Amino acid sequence: MKKKNIAILGSTGSVGTQALDVIKAFPELLEVSVLTASANADLLIAQAQEFKPKAVVIVCEDKYTQVKNALESLGITVLSGEKGLEEVVQYNEINMVLNAIVGSAGLRPTVKAIEHRKDIALANKETLVVAGALMMDLVRQYDVAMLPVDSEHSAIFQCLVGEQANPLEKIYLTASGGPFRGKDRDFLTTVTKQQALKHPNWVMGAKITIDSASLMNKGLEVIEAKWLFDLEVEQIDVIVHPQSIIHSVVQFQDGSMKAQMGLPDMKLPIQNALTYPHRQPNSLERFDFMNYASLTFEEADKDTFRNLELAYQSLRDGGDRPCVLNAANEVAVAAFLADEISFLGMSDLIEATMCQQKMVENPTLEDLLAIDSETRIVARSLVK
Amino acid sequence: MKKKNIAILGSTGSVGTQALDVIKAFPELLEVSVLTASANADLLIAQAQEFKPKAVVIVCEDKYTQVKNALESLGITVLSGEKGLEEVVQYNEINMVLNAIVGSAGLRPTVKAIEHRKDIALANKETLVVAGALMMDLVRQYDVAMLPVDSEHSAIFQCLVGEQANPLEKIYLTASGGPFRGKDRDFLTTVTKQQALKHPNWVMGAKITIDSASLMNKGLEVIEAKWLFDLEVEQIDVIVHPQSIIHSVVQFQDGSMKAQMGLPDMKLPIQNALTYPHRQPNSLERFDFMNYASLTFEEADKDTFRNLELAYQSLRDGGDRPCVLNAANEVAVAAFLADEISFLGMSDLIEATMCQQKMVENPTLEDLLAIDSETRIVARSLVK
Repeated sequence: MKKKNIAILGSTGSVGTQALDVIKAFPELLEVSVLTASANADLLIAQAQEFKPKAVVIVCEDKYTQVKNALESLGITVLSGEKGLEEVVQYNEINMVLNAIVGSAGLRPTVKAIEHRKDIALANKETLVVAGALMMDLVRQYDVAMLPVDSEHSAIFQCLVGEQANPLEKIYLTASGGPFRGKDRDFLTTVTKQQALKHPNWVMGAKITIDSASLMNKGLEVIEAKWLFDLEVEQIDVIVHPQSIIHSVVQFQDGSMKAQMGLPDMKLPIQNALTYPHRQPNSLERFDFMNYASLTFEEADKDTFRNLELAYQSLRDGGDRPCVLNAANEVAVAAFLADEISFLGMSDLIEATMCQQKMVENPTLEDLLAIDSETRIVARSLVK
Repeated sequence: MKKKNIAILGSTGSVGTQALDVIKAFPELLEVSVLTASANADLLIAQAQEFKPKAVVIVCEDKYTQVKNALESLGITVLSGEKGLEEVVQYNEINMVLNAIVGSAGLRPTVKAIEHRKDIALANKETLVVAGALMMDLVRQYDVAMLPVDSEHSAIFQCLVGEQANPLEKIYLTASGGPFRGKDRDFLTTVTKQQALKHPNWVMGAKITIDSASLMNKGLEVIEAKWLFDLEVEQIDVIVHPQSIIHSVVQFQDGSMKAQMGLPDMKLPIQNALTYPHRQPNSLERFDFMNYASLTFEEADKDTFRNLELAYQSLRDGGDRPCVLNAANEVAVAAFLADEISFLGMSDLIEATMCQQKMVENPTLEDLLAIDSETRIVARSLVK
C-alpha cells in the first residue's frame, strides 16, 4: 500500500484523537500533514509537536497567537478561521481528508476537499445531513471516494465491498438505544443531562452522546445512509441492539443479509476508512462470542423518541428539511446541556422550529448554509 | 448475466430437488443439461420429463432399462453407472456442475469436471473431506471456481466477496447444535434414530441429519473450510447458535467481523452458487428481527459430542485421516440407522476404525479411494 497523507479536520475531538492513535500505529502507511481544531489550542499544540504536520489551523481567532508562538519555531504553518480550513485541504500532498468536525462548519471544507480531488473519510454527519444530494453529486463529478467513519455506515460500507453490482433491498442501522432504552415519556420528563451523557457502550463527544440518548443520532444516520448508499427512505430501518456488537446489516435482493460485527471501538471504523481497501493487522481487543451469549434486538420506539420520527419525516419531505432539522437539533442539544430546556423539550423545539421555517425545495449549498444560520436564530428565539 | 448451463449430480436428493426449484425460478439465467440419480428412477424420470435435459444418468444399473424406456422417446440420452457420471460432466455445453451426490461417490465426477474446466457448485462434502489438498490443487491448476453450497461455507464465501486481498484471522462456523444440544452423555446413551432424525431448523437428508445430531456434520464442515478457504485448523472455530440465523462469521486481521444471515433455507445458498456473482431477486421469505428478539451463542461441547473432536484431530493428524474418519462415519451412521449400534456407539466405532488403519501421509486420489473402501470393510467388521 502506498503511504497515505492525511489531513485531520477536528483533530482534538474524540474521532480526531483516535485517528491520531491509528496513524501512530501504522507509520509505514499513514502520515499526517494537517491538523485542525476549533478552540482546543493546548491539545492542538501538543499534537503538532508530536506529529510535526506541515500546517495546523486553529479556527478560533483568539487562540491564533498562542498556537503560532508555540509552533512557528518548528517550521509549522499556523492558520486560523474557517478560511484556514478551506485552504489547508487543498495542499497537493494530501490524499485524504478526515473530516471529524462537529456541526455544519464541516460542510465548506468537505466541498473544497472534493473539488481538489481528495478522498474523504467522513465523520462529520452534517456534510450529508445538510447537503447530501449536492455532496454526492460532487463526489461523482470529481470521482473521489467518500468513506464513512461512523461505525454504522462503515459496517454497511464493509458489507458492500465486492457487491457493487448487487442492489440493496434494505438496510438495518443498529442503535444501542442509549441510556434511556425501554423508558417511557413519563420517565423522560425527569431525566437530567448527567443521565443523558452516560452512554452504555460508546465513548463519544457530548453532542453525539445526547443525540444517542434522544435517538436523533440514529435519525441523522438514516439521512446520511440515504445519500451514502443511494437508498429510498423506505429501505432504511432502525433496529435497537443494546449490545452494539452488530454495527449494521444489509439485505440484498436475494434475501441474503450481511452484518459487520465487533466490539464497539471507533478505532476500527477509523482504521478501515484510513487504510481502505487494505485491512491491516492490529492489536485491538477481539470480540468473543463467549462474552456475549445473547445478541438482542428490539423495535425502535419512535413514539417515545420522537426525534427519530422527525428525522424520517424530514427525509420524506425532502428539500431543506433535514438541514432545518439538524440546525434546530444543534440548538436544542446546546439548550438542554445549558439546562434551558428539558430532554423531551428538545423534540418540541425542533418541531416548532421546523413549523416556522418555510420549505425550500431545491436549495443550493449557499441556500443551505443560510437556512442553517436562520434556523439557529429561530430555534434560539423559541428556547423559553 | 449469460445463461448458465448446469449439470446436477444427485438431482433427486434434498439439494438436487431444491436446485431444480431454483433453476425453474430463473429460466432466463439457468438451464439444466444433465440430471443424475443414484437409484430413485421414478423421480429422475419425472424430473427429466419436466426439464428435458440432454442426458440423465441412473447410477444403479438395475434401473437402467426402466429409465431408458421412459425417456428415450423424448430424445434424452440415458446412461448408467459411475462411469456415466464421469462422462456427462464433460459435455461441452455445461458451464457448471452442481455436485449434490451424497458420499465418496462424489469424488471422481468432481475431478473429471474440474479437468474439463467446469465450475463446481459443491454440496458433496466428501470431495473436500476425503481429498481436499488434491482437489484444491486441481482447482488452481485448471483455474475453475469452486462455489460452496453448504449454508455455512456459502456464508463465509459471501463474506469474503471483494476481500480476497485481506487475510483471514479466524472463522466461526455456526452450528444449530442439533436436536440434542445441551444434553449430556447419559442422555445420549438412550436416544433413538427417530429422535436423531428430527432436526430443529433444517430439512435435509437422513445421513446429514444424523451427522447434525452428532456434530460430525460440523466436523466435516471444519475440514471442508480448511481447504476451501486455505486456513490452519487453529483458525477455525465452531460456535453453537441454535436459531440458525447467522450462517457463519469471518474475522479479518483488523478484528472486523462479517456475518452472513438469513432464514435457514437451502435455496438461498444454492441460488447464490448457481447465479454468482449476480444476486437475483427472489420471493424467498425474508428474515425479520422482530421474530428473533435474541440470537444466542454457546460453546460447542466436544466432550459430549466426540465426533467433532475426532474430526478436528483428523485434520491435525493430516494425511489420509479425514478420509478414514469420513468412511468410518458413513458406516457408523448406516449402522445407527439400521439399529445395529447406539448413538454414542458411532464415535466409538469411528475411533476404533481409525486405530486399526495405519496412517498414510501423502495419499494420491487412487490411494484415497482405496483407503475409503478398505475403511468401510474394517468399520463394518467392527459393528457388533
